Amino acid sequence: MHKKVAIIMGSGSDAEIMRPATWVFEKMGIEYDFLVVSAHRSPEWMFDYARTLDDRGVAIVIAGAGGAAHLPGMMAALTTVPVIGVPVRSRNSIDGLDSLLSIVQMPNDVPVATVAIDNAHNAAILAAQILAIGDAGISEKLKELKIANKQKVEEQNRIVNKK
Amino acid sequence: MHKKVAIIMGSGSDAEIMRPATWVFEKMGIEYDFLVVSAHRSPEWMFDYARTLDDRGVAIVIAGAGGAAHLPGMMAALTTVPVIGVPVRSRNSIDGLDSLLSIVQMPNDVPVATVAIDNAHNAAILAAQILAIGDAGISEKLKELKIANKQKVEEQNRIVNKK
Amino acid sequence: MHKKVAIIMGSGSDAEIMRPATWVFEKMGIEYDFLVVSAHRSPEWMFDYARTLDDRGVAIVIAGAGGAAHLPGMMAALTTVPVIGVPVRSRNSIDGLDSLLSIVQMPNDVPVATVAIDNAHNAAILAAQILAIGDAGISEKLKELKIANKQKVEEQNRIVNKK
Amino acid sequence: MHKKVAIIMGSGSDAEIMRPATWVFEKMGIEYDFLVVSAHRSPEWMFDYARTLDDRGVAIVIAGAGGAAHLPGMMAALTTVPVIGVPVRSRNSIDGLDSLLSIVQMPNDVPVATVAIDNAHNAAILAAQILAIGDAGISEKLKELKIANKQKVEEQNRIVNKK
Amino acid sequence: MHKKVAIIMGSGSDAEIMRPATWVFEKMGIEYDFLVVSAHRSPEWMFDYARTLDDRGVAIVIAGAGGAAHLPGMMAALTTVPVIGVPVRSRNSIDGLDSLLSIVQMPNDVPVATVAIDNAHNAAILAAQILAIGDAGISEKLKELKIANKQKVEEQNRIVNKK
Amino acid sequence: MHKKVAIIMGSGSDAEIMRPATWVFEKMGIEYDFLVVSAHRSPEWMFDYARTLDDRGVAIVIAGAGGAAHLPGMMAALTTVPVIGVPVRSRNSIDGLDSLLSIVQMPNDVPVATVAIDNAHNAAILAAQILAIGDAGISEKLKELKIANKQKVEEQNRIVNKK
Amino acid sequence: MHKKVAIIMGSGSDAEIMRPATWVFEKMGIEYDFLVVSAHRSPEWMFDYARTLDDRGVAIVIAGAGGAAHLPGMMAALTTVPVIGVPVRSRNSIDGLDSLLSIVQMPNDVPVATVAIDNAHNAAILAAQILAIGDAGISEKLKELKIANKQKVEEQNRIVNKK
Amino acid sequence: MHKKVAIIMGSGSDAEIMRPATWVFEKMGIEYDFLVVSAHRSPEWMFDYARTLDDRGVAIVIAGAGGAAHLPGMMAALTTVPVIGVPVRSRNSIDGLDSLLSIVQMPNDVPVATVAIDNAHNAAILAAQILAIGDAGISEKLKELKIANKQKVEEQNRIVNKK
Repeated sequence: MHKKVAIIMGSGSDAEIMRPATWVFEKMGIEYDFLVVSAHRSPEWMFDYARTLDDRGVAIVIAGAGGAAHLPGMMAALTTVPVIGVPVRSRNSIDGLDSLLSIVQMPNDVPVATVAIDNAHNAAILAAQILAIGDAGISEKLKELKIANKQKVEEQNRIVNKK
Repeated sequence: MHKKVAIIMGSGSDAEIMRPATWVFEKMGIEYDFLVVSAHRSPEWMFDYARTLDDRGVAIVIAGAGGAAHLPGMMAALTTVPVIGVPVRSRNSIDGLDSLLSIVQMPNDVPVATVAIDNAHNAAILAAQILAIGDAGISEKLKELKIANKQKVEEQNRIVNKK
Repeated sequence: MHKKVAIIMGSGSDAEIMRPATWVFEKMGIEYDFLVVSAHRSPEWMFDYARTLDDRGVAIVIAGAGGAAHLPGMMAALTTVPVIGVPVRSRNSIDGLDSLLSIVQMPNDVPVATVAIDNAHNAAILAAQILAIGDAGISEKLKELKIANKQKVEEQNRIVNKK
Repeated sequence: MHKKVAIIMGSGSDAEIMRPATWVFEKMGIEYDFLVVSAHRSPEWMFDYARTLDDRGVAIVIAGAGGAAHLPGMMAALTTVPVIGVPVRSRNSIDGLDSLLSIVQMPNDVPVATVAIDNAHNAAILAAQILAIGDAGISEKLKELKIANKQKVEEQNRIVNKK
Repeated sequence: MHKKVAIIMGSGSDAEIMRPATWVFEKMGIEYDFLVVSAHRSPEWMFDYARTLDDRGVAIVIAGAGGAAHLPGMMAALTTVPVIGVPVRSRNSIDGLDSLLSIVQMPNDVPVATVAIDNAHNAAILAAQILAIGDAGISEKLKELKIANKQKVEEQNRIVNKK
Repeated sequence: MHKKVAIIMGSGSDAEIMRPATWVFEKMGIEYDFLVVSAHRSPEWMFDYARTLDDRGVAIVIAGAGGAAHLPGMMAALTTVPVIGVPVRSRNSIDGLDSLLSIVQMPNDVPVATVAIDNAHNAAILAAQILAIGDAGISEKLKELKIANKQKVEEQNRIVNKK
Repeated sequence: MHKKVAIIMGSGSDAEIMRPATWVFEKMGIEYDFLVVSAHRSPEWMFDYARTLDDRGVAIVIAGAGGAAHLPGMMAALTTVPVIGVPVRSRNSIDGLDSLLSIVQMPNDVPVATVAIDNAHNAAILAAQILAIGDAGISEKLKELKIANKQKVEEQNRIVNKK
Repeated sequence: MHKKVAIIMGSGSDAEIMRPATWVFEKMGIEYDFLVVSAHRSPEWMFDYARTLDDRGVAIVIAGAGGAAHLPGMMAALTTVPVIGVPVRSRNSIDGLDSLLSIVQMPNDVPVATVAIDNAHNAAILAAQILAIGDAGISEKLKELKIANKQKVEEQNRIVNKK
């Protein structure tokens, strides 16, 4: 059973937005790739990459793209591996709404698991949740994260009432 | 490892939209529950239900809701199991955009894997893709579906050129 | 009859937006709590908090949240106390429209009294108007505020015509 | 302490949308008025009506209007009584979004408690919640409604699983 | 026949946006008033002001307002004088779209002549065009403006090709 | 002083939407033309028509158009006569929002007095208000219309309370 | 020099919307193909098809697709031939806005020539205009079409004034 | 056969956005004009310019405009030459959506080939693709650009993985 997550993005300029996904995986001990795979500028490379997902041991794809964002949907077309889409609010985007709609409104049989605009962190958490189905260690870490969040709320309560 | 998918919805009136998810699971031989779990009308039942997901053997939750759609996000808050959200275009909805934004724009650490408006079918396909990571049989069926779709395109080509 | 207003918010980062509500209550002599209660990070605390509203003497809840804003609606699900929702224009929000729709488009029997984007001040005024139904003192202060506003318009007229 | 709710609307053509508010009040034994008060066609009558709210024993105003919906906001300008706004999706409306924004985006000191598009029922529930602060009987009825809703969810579960 | 134009605005903070209208009138020799008349903070003053338009010699009203912008529409309700509306992109506005829809989507018999977002200059030009129907001098100035604009285009052509 | 209003529209298919403007003018005794003048299909005719407005005795132009609606703005470019724009919700329009934005968002010096979507009736009322500046007879009729509307509100009150 | 236009669409269900393009080509004597080429269901066939455009003698591609519409953009990625995109308002689309943004908001170096929602007719006219650069016969037909449209306006004028 | 491209824009202030189109043509050796042709301020010049396109040897028009953007559509009305529209996100624009809809939603027989918001670069690439149908040299350059883009993706991959 593969356990690696491929983090791919449509452009090198999306790297800053997508990087937080790697931080999640570093903390959780999940293996990942971090690659620029452009649907529009390198479609052949995208096709080849999609065909070799199995050989690369990739279980899940996280794909980030902006504007007319086609990378997540094309990856979903080319593989049966779950694809998580991150709408990137790129320059000249209509507040990220174009990216969001280009990624989420997929036709029958070709879903993309879409997360919030610019939220690569959440894409990584979702990937961890998926891997946790067959991995008790990751599951444990996700439960610890939930506990840590509860504690953070308590701490924030102290802070907002101190001011 | 759990393999059941829970299909839950905010209201009995969403059943017509959510039912196609069951057809996917019937075809693929994936076990499922089909339940009304309202975040707004039965919050305690939602909490209790979320707490018993493990006992029920649920690996993945598909949650459909309309308008100010809170069920998918609240399930994601209450469990570490992956939650797939289906925005339902309910009566008085702003073309489904309200449901979509209420489901997809989740904060850090609490992702919802959002699919297209009213597309419960795709939520089920996504769930199958997730289960397929650890189940070669489902993986095979998803690959067959892709082949069937290619053939359907060929067939549609014959039809559109016959007219 | 309870007269305290609970001001709650989904995250410590919303405190800056929600703080102006406290200024209104300070001026009007209305008792309040100011708390972080996250629907997504601390759902159990949210449930417990909702169950103890009566013991805490809370008459009205003001809940602020951004993005897929579920806190106001979940509080409305968990209590029969009036809930006032403040849509917060958080980072990566679609101009606050996502928060607004997530809060206002509630289903039957579970209303949220929604005010303008980022306008916690108005949430507090609305809470004061509600309390004023049974409290002539607050009613008087609201009438004085209206008179002060009329005078401010007169003053602004002098200013804009001096320039 | 006044306990009557005034249900007013911008046009006789809004009566069908606003009528469900009266059904809630009939069930709950809450006194109400049901009136056409047009901000645009009868502004003097609106002013006079606002001035006589106290004499009429009105504790809360529910105002429904469509398009460039000014009635709720003008009532809020003319009185210190809480005003609940119902955005009506009128003919030639942009899916109700124009009405919603015209009602909810009010300036400082003049809030309108906005509910979902076309949801006069929820405006009435909100009014009942406000009156319940000082009326244990209404409070009891709202709690019974919550219980009835929980039972309805159970019943819907039986129905959706029978099909 | 009256020839004065009243430039009114909902708040002193709109004065910066509305001021350019005065520059047009200064250049064209058209008499004007420049006043804060708030529909929400000074409704009685708005009513009184509307009733005295004739005594003040006002032929046309230009009204600017932001958010849930009610001033232009209320003036149109209170007078038969043409009202020109300027949607102001105020703080916390949804990109000015809320102001625009609150002003333009008026019901039958109560039109507001709406111009572009934040474009008080154009409101003044429109007022001048209206006055020019009965005033050959203003008509001449508007024709000269058109000629000046044509020349400006020629000049811009020289500039953009010099770079 | 000219007193005729030209009602022009981009297509014969807009005639049904624009016709109500003629009914207003019939009732008020205002002279009008009713013409198809397409900016996109008959631009020369539009130019020629604009040049002859004075000879035709036209004081005001009402222009209706849908989709990428250019007719009102082009007329405003070609004449100094006030141009009133009616956004038409044509087939394949995005709920009329495309027409509205294409008409209202005009650049400096070239305003279009925009009214509500599909509301040619209001365009005619606005034209009458403009003509009324120099015509006491029309002014009187507009005041009578306001009185009739007040009476209609009273009558609607009787009807909604009879049901 | 190739002169054939390929009309491709994402699904057989788009054929009804895309068919009018063929009528234009029939009238103009322009050769065309009419094919279902799904980016999501038949990506390999799309790749192969794109690679053989030259062999097929295709000068221009017209691609129609709905929802998260990727076909036009992917064709633009795979070929240097001009690609014309037709946003199709498919079932569950957000009024066609999702399709439009998915097609038009393309990144640098990969343009799609986007036309109006559901307007395959115009895609064909645009293709004819492109071919007319090197073909005086087509150019002549386009000029005749412009003349016919002018005459149609004249005729519509007679009709609307007869009623 | 003409091969020159006219780059025109509604205002000198659009020059900064439109300039990148010239850089594409400089690199590709394509002849171009760069002109301010305002539909609203210089309609006669626009008409005259459109009439002389043939004499000027213009094969394609690129037109950029913001707000109620009429220049691209009016050029399409006045000529049978292909017109490429660039929606410019001007000051007071609603995020460029107004310009986009004003340009793309053209009626039958008058298409505008619309590209992404502010993307004059892509308008030039599209023009080059059109000219390449009859010009092997340009075709070759476009193919080289595609290869360069593939290499840029490879290079970006090295960079994002170095950090």
